[in-house]
Amino acid sequence: MRFLQTADWHLGRKLHGFDLQAEQEAAFVQIEKIALQENVDGIIIAGDIYDRSMPAEQTVDLANQMLQRLNLTDHLPLYAIAGNHDSASRLATGTPWFSSTNFYLHTQLAEAFEPIELETVQIFLLPYFEPFAAQQYFADDSLLHLDQAMAAVINKIKQQFDPTKKHLLVGHFFAAGSSQTASETRLTVGGLAPVPIDLLTDFDYVALGHLHNKDALQTNKIRYSGSPLKFSLSEVRQQKGVFLLDTETQQTKFYPIKPLHDLHDLQNEFAELTNPSFYQSQPRKDFFGITLTDQKPIPNVLARLREIYPKIVALQRTADYSELFEQSQSTKKITQQNPLQLLDDFYQQVANEQLSAAQIKWAQKALQNIREEAKS
Amino acid sequence: MRFLQTADWHLGRKLHGFDLQAEQEAAFVQIEKIALQENVDGIIIAGDIYDRSMPAEQTVDLANQMLQRLNLTDHLPLYAIAGNHDSASRLATGTPWFSSTNFYLHTQLAEAFEPIELETVQIFLLPYFEPFAAQQYFADDSLLHLDQAMAAVINKIKQQFDPTKKHLLVGHFFAAGSSQTASETRLTVGGLAPVPIDLLTDFDYVALGHLHNKDALQTNKIRYSGSPLKFSLSEVRQQKGVFLLDTETQQTKFYPIKPLHDLHDLQNEFAELTNPSFYQSQPRKDFFGITLTDQKPIPNVLARLREIYPKIVALQRTADYSELFEQSQSTKKITQQNPLQLLDDFYQQVANEQLSAAQIKWAQKALQNIREEAKS
Repeated sequence: MRFLQTADWHLGRKLHGFDLQAEQEAAFVQIEKIALQENVDGIIIAGDIYDRSMPAEQTVDLANQMLQRLNLTDHLPLYAIAGNHDSASRLATGTPWFSSTNFYLHTQLAEAFEPIELETVQIFLLPYFEPFAAQQYFADDSLLHLDQAMAAVINKIKQQFDPTKKHLLVGHFFAAGSSQTASETRLTVGGLAPVPIDLLTDFDYVALGHLHNKDALQTNKIRYSGSPLKFSLSEVRQQKGVFLLDTETQQTKFYPIKPLHDLHDLQNEFAELTNPSFYQSQPRKDFFGITLTDQKPIPNVLARLREIYPKIVALQRTADYSELFEQSQSTKKITQQNPLQLLDDFYQQVANEQLSAAQIKWAQKALQNIREEAKS
Repeated sequence: MRFLQTADWHLGRKLHGFDLQAEQEAAFVQIEKIALQENVDGIIIAGDIYDRSMPAEQTVDLANQMLQRLNLTDHLPLYAIAGNHDSASRLATGTPWFSSTNFYLHTQLAEAFEPIELETVQIFLLPYFEPFAAQQYFADDSLLHLDQAMAAVINKIKQQFDPTKKHLLVGHFFAAGSSQTASETRLTVGGLAPVPIDLLTDFDYVALGHLHNKDALQTNKIRYSGSPLKFSLSEVRQQKGVFLLDTETQQTKFYPIKPLHDLHDLQNEFAELTNPSFYQSQPRKDFFGITLTDQKPIPNVLARLREIYPKIVALQRTADYSELFEQSQSTKKITQQNPLQLLDDFYQQVANEQLSAAQIKWAQKALQNIREEAKS
């Protein structure tokens, strides 16, 4: 049987303040198209459908539309689980009715032990869970850590194995050996400790969610699909897409997803970044993380860059800029200078001229007011 | 056909800070029992299933359990709509799948025009909507007020009438002629203006939600079921329950719901309320709103009453207490007295003794500190 594998949609997520709904919709259209063209037997969604447990109404609308589209319009079976970003309770709404159209969405640990029985495959949908849930389920207080809890869970899952079928696990956790990136480090808050890969070797295939990098694990049988979009600058070099899994041949094939607006990082001098001969060759409607190599202050820098690159998601300096600044003699001088002298120096640096007599008078008056307020 | 009519469950609601989940569950068990014993053809839930658009996870769990129980375990058809307290988006989750088991839950205005076709009855499920939704649906900016919008909606609904069947409307709005109570006045915030009853006369029956009083309308064909619980002291005299509607005989029958803990109001003197010969005959585990008839201050009064009546939801004085206080000469004196004299008077009133020398010294020091702080 052939399944499309995706995960970590994080619907509702913003990219440094920029709304991603149009990007999400564009990625979804491609996922749907791949599934239909390849005539898959179902779509695996390995958790984190939502970005947060309390999604906004428009995000609920979006998720509802997408899942209805795939399952009710396209008649594609869905095999989905809750991730750590989803609210299991909210995601559980309606699930008992979904199976009537082969939409399986597991949100509770206990559901992992009820495999979806297909002709040649058993699918075990193991939602994100915390060790406490396993302690309760197994009535065993010794399951303090996720690796211990996972060992008990996998053991119980194996007891349901039908030896005549392939065994497919869908999970949402951090499997050991994967390399975490900045945006995923944040996701592990809440005790999502690594799960040793050797616990998973008895499955024919393990479709994972949680890490956003499709290459996080270098194994053929255990794979993260990665997220369909780049959700942080740490993912800027990752290729995004979905996998197609064939359980007969045990082959997977990667299908890239073309972003509506890609995310790039640029490192250059301000003069070059604002030079038409440079920027006219840039995909300027895309998202940019910019690192300036200049070593001088640049007045109003973000606003000036945004005139050329409207969607700057982050702006920083190369490391040596702040080092230089910190180590310079001017830093030491700052603590010794009087405020008016400091203002004059700053004004010269950014405006390339000295303060006028009127400006000095205004500044003196402002300083006087501050001193009086401090006294009272 | 025979339907149980209920509405305004307001799951997640608190009664002046007291959690009502156990009360809600107890009422639900009775509703379920009536439906099963009477072997109804379905349950009508006329909006405000939730108390708020962003319900807590445990409230989502509770609602999911109840609706699953009725529809999937008991196999009872459900005919439900969103009310003004529900989030239409959140409540819409899963609805396209629900109809496979005769669970109809309408959240959007457009759905009102797709009647549920039963053997002898058409059910029109009209969710709560604001005039703006009707403006959009009919592309008519003149529908500024709810009565105008409702006229257009009802007119369009009538175009779907099958003359061989009875026509049943389920709605959530304030129909004119009903008497609003305090807790419902709050619900009308957001422009839920009255709808004239004569708009509704072409239906064989109209099952309404929104007002919590089953007797809000004195008509046989248009009825509020009221809420299954008392949600405020303004509802203290209302009998709570559900209706059973028979569309053949056009008869309705009221089935009371017995609260796990009822809500009472008590008006009496403190001495009487705290007298065992009085309070031992009171259902002291219930909720109480207490009005004290005393005309003197009573120190620590709420804590002392709660030792006897643990679930006091409101405590007030009779009107003449504050009037008396306002009109008394002491009020005039207060503005003229110095603070220490005022404290001494107050202490005598509540403690029945004068301030000791040490207390006076402490009070003087505190007043001195206040004066100095005021100066600086």
